[in-house]
Amino acid sequence: MFAILLCILLPSARAQSDPLPSWNNTPPKQVLLDFVHRVTQQGSPDFVPVDQRIATFDNDGTLWVEQPMYVQLAFVVYRVHQLAPNHPGWKTKQPFKGVLDGDMKAVEATGEKGLVQLMAATHAGMTVDQFQKIVTDFLANAQHPRFKRPYPQCVYQPMLELLAYLRANGFKTYIVSGGGIEFMRPWTEQVYGVPPEQVVGSSIKTKFEIVNGQPVLMRLPEINFIDDGDGKPVGINQYIGRRPIAAFGNSDGDLQMLQWTTAGPGPRLALIVHHTDAVREYAYDRQSHFGRLDKALDEAAVKGWVVVDMKNDWKTIFPPQH
Amino acid sequence: MFAILLCILLPSARAQSDPLPSWNNTPPKQVLLDFVHRVTQQGSPDFVPVDQRIATFDNDGTLWVEQPMYVQLAFVVYRVHQLAPNHPGWKTKQPFKGVLDGDMKAVEATGEKGLVQLMAATHAGMTVDQFQKIVTDFLANAQHPRFKRPYPQCVYQPMLELLAYLRANGFKTYIVSGGGIEFMRPWTEQVYGVPPEQVVGSSIKTKFEIVNGQPVLMRLPEINFIDDGDGKPVGINQYIGRRPIAAFGNSDGDLQMLQWTTAGPGPRLALIVHHTDAVREYAYDRQSHFGRLDKALDEAAVKGWVVVDMKNDWKTIFPPQH
Repeated sequence: MFAILLCILLPSARAQSDPLPSWNNTPPKQVLLDFVHRVTQQGSPDFVPVDQRIATFDNDGTLWVEQPMYVQLAFVVYRVHQLAPNHPGWKTKQPFKGVLDGDMKAVEATGEKGLVQLMAATHAGMTVDQFQKIVTDFLANAQHPRFKRPYPQCVYQPMLELLAYLRANGFKTYIVSGGGIEFMRPWTEQVYGVPPEQVVGSSIKTKFEIVNGQPVLMRLPEINFIDDGDGKPVGINQYIGRRPIAAFGNSDGDLQMLQWTTAGPGPRLALIVHHTDAVREYAYDRQSHFGRLDKALDEAAVKGWVVVDMKNDWKTIFPPQH
Repeated sequence: MFAILLCILLPSARAQSDPLPSWNNTPPKQVLLDFVHRVTQQGSPDFVPVDQRIATFDNDGTLWVEQPMYVQLAFVVYRVHQLAPNHPGWKTKQPFKGVLDGDMKAVEATGEKGLVQLMAATHAGMTVDQFQKIVTDFLANAQHPRFKRPYPQCVYQPMLELLAYLRANGFKTYIVSGGGIEFMRPWTEQVYGVPPEQVVGSSIKTKFEIVNGQPVLMRLPEINFIDDGDGKPVGINQYIGRRPIAAFGNSDGDLQMLQWTTAGPGPRLALIVHHTDAVREYAYDRQSHFGRLDKALDEAAVKGWVVVDMKNDWKTIFPPQH
């Protein structure tokens, strides 16, 4: 009898607990709670069937740290150091010399050509299975220079709660990032609860080959798709084939995703994480090299999109270290 | 009390009912039932966790009819006729003249250049939302020339049962087709129970634009990705990011998908639908223009893949007409 009572009482007890404990009781939290309530209430004019509850999240700067540089760029640096013993010529040849010397100005001076060379040396020429192991090794061994913790722990606790809260309400949560799709897939399920098939990102081309009787997918030094800016709605349509009803970003690279999401009929939510907290994380926007937020901040004001003031709206930034 | 008893008894009663009633009791059915049993039995050495139960299905010739021509080609013909009044020049200009005259030899003579012109005229130059409506209109109004029923009813009843059976056992079912991804997505959920985000296919490029203040995705007359042959494992990796444990096809265009699927560790299933039934459907393989099955049939024999003999293994071909 007690068990039956517990079963009856538990759901309402759970409903009363706070699903977003790391969010302060400021307007963004209320907007999020209201939106989820409206789209999930059967009979509400804003009710959205479960299969259409699609939410897309940018990754760099929205779910995890993107300063002092994109984590994937830190991976390139890590990987060049790791491979350097097999490439003695790199000591005197840009852009590799710049990376090895920590001279990022010299790397930048090599322009797009240099970037493609770095990408080819660190991201291509292996099978997709091998690349997955390389990424996993990097994330297990590297750490953030300031926070001194592995990158998968430099994720935003309030956003982890938001992801879980949306999923608990029937949403399918997707990552739609300018970052490499195969750089994210090995760890997003464990860290964000987002499985590989719900990760959309930039990619290089791969080629199917039979090597020693075994089929493999080789990674080629050639861009396939850039999932940034205009590319985000294109990627959403290509991979998901439905328009999200909610989208979350933090930079101008997310502007078109937010425009595309909010232009559909029915209830819509667009949210921008504004990095305003130099003490606990970083403060940057219109002038930043990584994650510049300029046009999207103006458009958010005009269109009434939610802008999270990290300093005031978030109680905590990172999950407890483990 | 009766209700409680019913609840207790129902699951076992359901388990004893046949999940594949349109399959004869020949070897393919037993292999399917055995495979699903093995991968879903907790504690079995072949147990596969739910998140890894990925099954991929070719579409043309595996889930629906591909004779006397691919349905998407029938769509091109339909669309050219529909658009012809606005293009008086087509009456005298190939490849359009050939399509309008029903002279497919003349169309073929225009080669790849002609095909690209037809694709551009029928598949590009509109938004993705507009194209979705055009496809939906075609499927509602066109019918198969021999079976005299709409194309979405020219699907294979045994495969519908297999899709549902796999999903009931925790599988995520995907379509991986050489057909156009946006030609399939408007109807696969209703017909196969496969939502748009689980459809992988060939695509043309799209471009994000703001038109009259509204963001749209315009379809461009430019190939983005061909999801056939070598392209199928590439597409699987790109869209799903995991290797399937079961794959279903019917032609040489599926060979690499079956190779890629069966090359992974643990239990694997590869199945080929062999069209052997000229009376109830069609009989074709090594010499066929559409859906040629030659190399994959040889490899199936060597590797022990399941080959469905449609005539002998399927009790019924199509669902009841409605």
